Amino acid sequence: MATATMLDERIKVPQTGLAARLAARRDHYDGPTSGLAPGFVQANLAILSQKLVEDFLRFCQLNPKPCPLIGVSAPGDWRIPALAEDLDIRTDVPRYRVWRDGTLADEPQDLMGWWRDDLVTFAIGCSFSFEQALIEDGMELRHITCGCTVPMYRTSIETMPAGPFRGPLVVSMRPLKPADAIRAVQITTRFPSVHGAPIHIGKPELIGIADLAAPDYGDAVPVGDDEIPVFWACGVTPQSVIAAARPEFCITHYPGSMLVTDRRNAEFAIM
Amino acid sequence: MATATMLDERIKVPQTGLAARLAARRDHYDGPTSGLAPGFVQANLAILSQKLVEDFLRFCQLNPKPCPLIGVSAPGDWRIPALAEDLDIRTDVPRYRVWRDGTLADEPQDLMGWWRDDLVTFAIGCSFSFEQALIEDGMELRHITCGCTVPMYRTSIETMPAGPFRGPLVVSMRPLKPADAIRAVQITTRFPSVHGAPIHIGKPELIGIADLAAPDYGDAVPVGDDEIPVFWACGVTPQSVIAAARPEFCITHYPGSMLVTDRRNAEFAIM
Repeated sequence: MATATMLDERIKVPQTGLAARLAARRDHYDGPTSGLAPGFVQANLAILSQKLVEDFLRFCQLNPKPCPLIGVSAPGDWRIPALAEDLDIRTDVPRYRVWRDGTLADEPQDLMGWWRDDLVTFAIGCSFSFEQALIEDGMELRHITCGCTVPMYRTSIETMPAGPFRGPLVVSMRPLKPADAIRAVQITTRFPSVHGAPIHIGKPELIGIADLAAPDYGDAVPVGDDEIPVFWACGVTPQSVIAAARPEFCITHYPGSMLVTDRRNAEFAIM
Repeated sequence: MATATMLDERIKVPQTGLAARLAARRDHYDGPTSGLAPGFVQANLAILSQKLVEDFLRFCQLNPKPCPLIGVSAPGDWRIPALAEDLDIRTDVPRYRVWRDGTLADEPQDLMGWWRDDLVTFAIGCSFSFEQALIEDGMELRHITCGCTVPMYRTSIETMPAGPFRGPLVVSMRPLKPADAIRAVQITTRFPSVHGAPIHIGKPELIGIADLAAPDYGDAVPVGDDEIPVFWACGVTPQSVIAAARPEFCITHYPGSMLVTDRRNAEFAIM
């Protein structure tokens, strides 16, 4: 595995999607993408062999809230022109995870040694986009205040299965004051291609979450007595569904190291 | 006081705003307007003497969620052309309440004996409009299922005062399953001129409601363990604020007997 090259004084914080991709491609930046290219859409990554594509496309179509597809490549093609002109999916994500039969095989900084002509890339919308809109509205997002990862939970809600892809919906949780929760519904409704409106509010037990302090992914955050937990469908859902399907070969992004695109978050607002 | 003439087989249920007004004007219908003229906007009524108009207009402007003004007459004029061409505010509401110095003086079926040249009529949006949209979306509204009046509560939230008009915000409450609560935020956001999005969700104690089973107006309704209470600003707020101001003279509608207009609920959706 490559050693981490953290973004430091030698490299200016990339201000555009292209600059963020070039930091990964040329400068071998391999850290998290949160905070890079403010205002530009970041995406979850899933790269599957062609024989799984039909089932996975169907899975995304059946489950648009956890799996909002914002880009799909042609087979073997490392470009996704809909997301950026100058984009090479083999080099432009800071760090990847390569899986064989459901087991982690590598965490490389590029895919030059792993690329295959039968691979199809899926770019799936990410909550960074709507979080920016919430922050611009003046809301405090607890996991950002705490400097940690948003807490995520497997729920008792089953996704709609397609072929080998099936499993529980994973949600992210943000505690908000009631008036902010209402406002957050309004704001995130405007962003259907990055998970959209919450899927649940209050009462975690109703969706199979026994203990908010014990998330399945990410970090627990404090919830105030004057707050209610608000739950959004999460892009970790397709990751966990793919892992459970144990495909012979697949590639995902390293957690937190997303694909940064040239599309702007504002473009994804429907109103 | 006039005796009640209930809508019965002799009178067909009015299907338009005009038919509903004519039922009051010509047929002396004096019952509730819920269920009349489906699809047409109904309004809360406040009729004040001209010397209070400036303060009350300012109060409505400061408090648009409980006091969404949808029509104002000229002084002494019994017409409101913005709401209906053929409208006489003195006869078209099934039953009125006349107040002197804050005390109920009469509950007449028309205002012919009470009209004054200095009176100004305010028509204030009502939750019937957004309730229709919720029902059309497939939601169960508990107070309708129970055949009772929606529960309403005085809150610890103060309205913004203007002149003699001041007092607590009154809210209506509808228990909803979490997914329906989210959907209800989306739907009612489209109707800002009929109270708009909820002002609170979950945790009644945070807005000064000690016991959901003891509403200040209307009737208590059961709240399921799988439901959360959702609170909307309520048109009873201006009624209670006017009552507390104890004006020398004013007129309101009899509870449940609203002004039915020619405007359609669908017109009031902003999107």
